[in-house]
Amino acid sequence: MARWALLLEYDGTPFVGWQYQITGPSVQSVLDDAIGKLAGGKIITIAAGRTDSGVHASGQVVHVDFDREMTPAKVVAAINFHLKPHPVAVVKAAIVPETFNARFSAIGRAYCYRILNRPARAALMARRVWHIPQKLDAAAMHAGAQFLLGRHDFTSFRASACQASSPLRTLDRLDVRRDGDLIEITAEARSFLHHQVRNMVGTLRFVGVGSWQPEDMARALEARDRGAAGPTAPPDGLCMTGVKYPISPFEETQRV
Amino acid sequence: MARWALLLEYDGTPFVGWQYQITGPSVQSVLDDAIGKLAGGKIITIAAGRTDSGVHASGQVVHVDFDREMTPAKVVAAINFHLKPHPVAVVKAAIVPETFNARFSAIGRAYCYRILNRPARAALMARRVWHIPQKLDAAAMHAGAQFLLGRHDFTSFRASACQASSPLRTLDRLDVRRDGDLIEITAEARSFLHHQVRNMVGTLRFVGVGSWQPEDMARALEARDRGAAGPTAPPDGLCMTGVKYPISPFEETQRV
Repeated sequence: MARWALLLEYDGTPFVGWQYQITGPSVQSVLDDAIGKLAGGKIITIAAGRTDSGVHASGQVVHVDFDREMTPAKVVAAINFHLKPHPVAVVKAAIVPETFNARFSAIGRAYCYRILNRPARAALMARRVWHIPQKLDAAAMHAGAQFLLGRHDFTSFRASACQASSPLRTLDRLDVRRDGDLIEITAEARSFLHHQVRNMVGTLRFVGVGSWQPEDMARALEARDRGAAGPTAPPDGLCMTGVKYPISPFEETQRV
Repeated sequence: MARWALLLEYDGTPFVGWQYQITGPSVQSVLDDAIGKLAGGKIITIAAGRTDSGVHASGQVVHVDFDREMTPAKVVAAINFHLKPHPVAVVKAAIVPETFNARFSAIGRAYCYRILNRPARAALMARRVWHIPQKLDAAAMHAGAQFLLGRHDFTSFRASACQASSPLRTLDRLDVRRDGDLIEITAEARSFLHHQVRNMVGTLRFVGVGSWQPEDMARALEARDRGAAGPTAPPDGLCMTGVKYPISPFEETQRV
């Protein structure tokens, strides 16, 4: 039995999210089915982050145990064959030590949230962005975001359904920058609370439209009250872009 | 009666192409219908480039005549309202002189062709890229592309159905550059023959995989024979990114 780490890309639109749910297909269910066809039997993958319905990934990492002897390239090709026609692809695969756990070994997670900031709705980027027609001040949003950096009680930005035992998290990065009509928000932390990124983005929108000052972000954080922050931003704009481990599992299987 | 120029973005996937066809909905048909609801009566738009089925646009330009007095912002909002749920959006609108013709006034057209070059098929970028699993040498492709620059008879890269009276075109730019697993090919000319960009890309693939040397592109060009060049690249990777006019119609309606 070998333990594999897989680097995963998916379009979250047609899924109920990462995890199994009775309400529809999940990313995990189509991935487990595909690996099951290759390895034989019931397979359960463990992911670094359990993304919500509609949230995308370009750098999700999972681990899974099965005992077919194959090269990483063959594993990538075989799983991708069985994943058709779902918009999920294994980008890289590597054999890792048995002690590797995609979720618990992770020491960093990165997300990107994209806002399309123009009067016209999205056509080419539909379901990949949050469309906000009112003009946003990205520099003010960035200034506001900096008040959230560091180790804090993030209760104000935590979903009521969040199952984490502690609301304490350390936010390492929350950058907001404009590139034409697109505003990209980059978030990095060891781990995030449920809906934390989307709640931070939904609150930064208040700063962007000018109804909040940047320093009001600090007030919202200190309140430790979900009602003190803004609404949850839609899932469409969110993409899990990467997971950091003490030793990257994919060093040997770099880009083509 | 006022003449309007519209800057258009669309996902070409669900359409038979820009032009009306009996086989299914075209970008032009949904746009003409939407403007017709706003302006009353039958409307015919003229586009700078008649993109093929599956080809996208982020910078298509059209002109159209109608006599509703509205601000550009209202025109953008109203047409986009009527365009729902089609993946087509008017990004900008401007009143232009009656002498402006989106097609015949254009002095430059720009396209971007994107190749996803990795073993794993596309998930997030499905229908936006050409997936080529074999490793491509982008530098060799770029070197080969340079042999096509300038004024030439492009018969070797012209669709048999091309209706242009002359196969002579002046290619101003054909850049190939790699960004990770993505290869972006930028093409600029006053105008292109039918399928010219896709045929150039399909031929550059020979150089990328190493079965052709860069200078073989010159041989293919000189042959003036469609059979001397490579196959037509799929439409998915192609996007019309911009049109140049002596005076840009959209100067006054810049980005939010």
